[in-house]
Amino acid sequence: MENLIKQYENLRKKMKAYQFANYLASWDASTEAPKGCFANRSIQMGVLSEEAYKLQTSEETSNIVDELFAKKEQLEPILKHEIEETKRSLDNMKKIPMNEYVEFMTILSDSQQIWAEAKKAADWSKFAPTLEKIVAYLKKYVQYLETDRLKGYDVLLNDFERDFLMEDCDLFFDALKRDLVPFVKKVLKKPLVYQNHFENATYPVEKQKQFIYYLQDVMGFDRNRGLMKESEHPFTSGFGSSDVRFTVHYYENNLTSAIFSAIHEMGHAIYEQQVDSALEQTNSGGGASMALHESQSRFYENIIGRSKEFWKVHFPKLKKTFPKQLKGITLNDFHQSINRGQASLIRIEADELTYAIHIMLRYDIEKALFNNEITVNDLPRVWNEKMKEYLDLDVPNDKEGVLQDVHWAFGGFGYFPSYALGSAYAAQMLATMKKDFPVFKSLKQGTTKAINSWFKERLHRYGATQHPKALFENVVKEKFQPQYYINYLIEKYSQIYNL
Amino acid sequence: MENLIKQYENLRKKMKAYQFANYLASWDASTEAPKGCFANRSIQMGVLSEEAYKLQTSEETSNIVDELFAKKEQLEPILKHEIEETKRSLDNMKKIPMNEYVEFMTILSDSQQIWAEAKKAADWSKFAPTLEKIVAYLKKYVQYLETDRLKGYDVLLNDFERDFLMEDCDLFFDALKRDLVPFVKKVLKKPLVYQNHFENATYPVEKQKQFIYYLQDVMGFDRNRGLMKESEHPFTSGFGSSDVRFTVHYYENNLTSAIFSAIHEMGHAIYEQQVDSALEQTNSGGGASMALHESQSRFYENIIGRSKEFWKVHFPKLKKTFPKQLKGITLNDFHQSINRGQASLIRIEADELTYAIHIMLRYDIEKALFNNEITVNDLPRVWNEKMKEYLDLDVPNDKEGVLQDVHWAFGGFGYFPSYALGSAYAAQMLATMKKDFPVFKSLKQGTTKAINSWFKERLHRYGATQHPKALFENVVKEKFQPQYYINYLIEKYSQIYNL
Repeated sequence: MENLIKQYENLRKKMKAYQFANYLASWDASTEAPKGCFANRSIQMGVLSEEAYKLQTSEETSNIVDELFAKKEQLEPILKHEIEETKRSLDNMKKIPMNEYVEFMTILSDSQQIWAEAKKAADWSKFAPTLEKIVAYLKKYVQYLETDRLKGYDVLLNDFERDFLMEDCDLFFDALKRDLVPFVKKVLKKPLVYQNHFENATYPVEKQKQFIYYLQDVMGFDRNRGLMKESEHPFTSGFGSSDVRFTVHYYENNLTSAIFSAIHEMGHAIYEQQVDSALEQTNSGGGASMALHESQSRFYENIIGRSKEFWKVHFPKLKKTFPKQLKGITLNDFHQSINRGQASLIRIEADELTYAIHIMLRYDIEKALFNNEITVNDLPRVWNEKMKEYLDLDVPNDKEGVLQDVHWAFGGFGYFPSYALGSAYAAQMLATMKKDFPVFKSLKQGTTKAINSWFKERLHRYGATQHPKALFENVVKEKFQPQYYINYLIEKYSQIYNL
Repeated sequence: MENLIKQYENLRKKMKAYQFANYLASWDASTEAPKGCFANRSIQMGVLSEEAYKLQTSEETSNIVDELFAKKEQLEPILKHEIEETKRSLDNMKKIPMNEYVEFMTILSDSQQIWAEAKKAADWSKFAPTLEKIVAYLKKYVQYLETDRLKGYDVLLNDFERDFLMEDCDLFFDALKRDLVPFVKKVLKKPLVYQNHFENATYPVEKQKQFIYYLQDVMGFDRNRGLMKESEHPFTSGFGSSDVRFTVHYYENNLTSAIFSAIHEMGHAIYEQQVDSALEQTNSGGGASMALHESQSRFYENIIGRSKEFWKVHFPKLKKTFPKQLKGITLNDFHQSINRGQASLIRIEADELTYAIHIMLRYDIEKALFNNEITVNDLPRVWNEKMKEYLDLDVPNDKEGVLQDVHWAFGGFGYFPSYALGSAYAAQMLATMKKDFPVFKSLKQGTTKAINSWFKERLHRYGATQHPKALFENVVKEKFQPQYYINYLIEKYSQIYNL
């Protein structure tokens, strides 16, 4: 047994080395690598992926994992969970015929490029044939992986958020449709009046950066175990709790874009940094799921970062950083501005109030597609109808409609719901946290220390050592209930809009 | 045969993928990786090195290379050269008993740390025992690799600059001792009088950076195939001609440090960028040797970058960038300042005039050490005596003397001569270039285009496809002659110092 575990640990160590190479290369590619190097680099990356793939799918790996799986009751819980997860993913891999998988990879190798061109030209017909192929493969994929419990679209949902399936999504999104959509429509009809001249002022990038370094200290981002950099699209990336990196994109004419995306990314980053460092050499040393990760980023960004209590402490510093631009702006003006609700066509520009509705629309469409109720050709029409229904907006072109997101171009059907689920998780976590200490009052200290500690204790330190649902329920001590989220939004926006 | 070549190319492709991972990780480590990540990262890097090492020393590799070597006359010249080089290095590897090699690696794993502490404390006794071990191993290493042609210290010299051995070094350094040292002593006695108040002004980093971007365009550094970043110690690093990166270290109180180190690094970078891109997938796609590389960096830094003709064109731009700091400073003042000769204790701060003397001192010492004329214990004393003899300086402590360089701490005996050789190569190249076109007049165009093209044609494009000596002789169309270097320095400094 001991020997078997050693063999497994050896394999895992090798796999992690390839993951590390991949981690650094992606980070480099997204932040600074010169454009001209990618043709050559793709050869090296190809070799490294192939070596990793061979290792993962080798008979030796399979045998070791199978043997450990057979004896899993003798393993300590963390390793047991890891072996179950590894076994599941290896078994799934084996169910896909290699030639089909390779063909799919070939489609994906230029599908994002095709999508980008179609989006640029706002021309759906340029992307549709590729998307047809992607969906055709995924429908076969679904068939290969279906079980008694996972049916159809569930297979895809399960790939992104374990066991959060159509049944759960339906409950969640039906509640939103019933209780949130009417409220949102009411809010969007009411104008918000405040001093807003600062919204279009000019904010030098260096000063913005300086303020975000200040926010790092407020939020407890540990620069000794992480770093911040610029990139086109903000993201967080990490390799164990000792190396966690996030990026920011600065806009000279937009003060709040960089601030809130940085707070969002630091939500992800603090989760990663607070994982127990003893897990660093395991496969469980990072956040446990998409939705749990998103719950953290949105908790810090929206619940904390857009609260009046937070800015009561930090707005003076912001004014000091931009005295001219923020002259005459009150805390109240700023708070109104960062919480304004607006119907928008674009998901990534959506505010806290309307965000989940954008996801709901995508869920409806994906579900109908994999239930064979609509086809790829129907997507633009269905998209536009739903946009009218939920947000009362007319979509002027497919660039601002069905072509806006990259996810489908890389085959990421089933991905979107985890975004909305994250927000809902966050609201339920807040309700629980409030029972333990006065969350917003604690911000008076000038840091989010109390909140970080609570999350570390209840969630972060466990990394991915347990099933994401179990981890969530360990935080809130009950099952997931979408009503927390709806109530949170209604309460918050009733106050802001004085309804 | 075709099949054999394919097998070799496959192996090479894998090796290059590991090199790529290593390249990115070192770049990351030297520029931005957070301090706290290194303990974990060393595990991943260990695995990747081990995989690369296994591949390199596998029987399969050995067999393929041996077979190709046996049939080398049938190979096209580039591959033939590469196989000869690979065969040589594999054969050398086999001559070292594995246990001794591993033991040496263990010593090296903390020797730089020990050296750094000893240097900080200016305490030779802290480093001497480790250096004893390093030298003891290298003496055995020399014995294993000695041939009829390579004797003693030659083995080490040959590791850094192929076939530039003691015989060549003696000729070179003896000429310096005879013809340069007396001249240098004469120069150092003469004061240089010019407006120098700008040397201690404050130069904001952002403005310095802006000027160095301007210099990138002057020198033709291609940002589409490379990038510039900051680091503690400036260096250049690359992976093929499409990915060439260099770093700068900015000092607020020193205008010229960043400028000349950037020009120096861009000399390296342009060499790499101008290698024929068809060589990218081979092992010959970079610069051919230490000395050839250094010849390029020093050609651009000293011969071009410190010439009056260069600054005649670019000094106005510099004044425009720093109008207040450079008020009243003439081209002549600036030119005097950047060419002032000074006896200094520290090699990396040495000017163009005295640099080679620092190397000569190290060569004398290393040679005596490996000829068993002195021991490790004698090093501080011998160092200080030579410093007195060559530059008439008293060494106040070992930190500014024998402990100043890191090279010995990583076993880099034999490394130093290539630095001085690079400078001498550059001077001889200049003499040849002048026969083809008016080098300094060509700078009037505002760029170094004519110079870049000449080097590309005669040297850069070949990458490492030939023996470094052959490449050098292809540039200058004769053998190496140290007199060019001595004459160049005497002529230049006679003019500057009005001798």
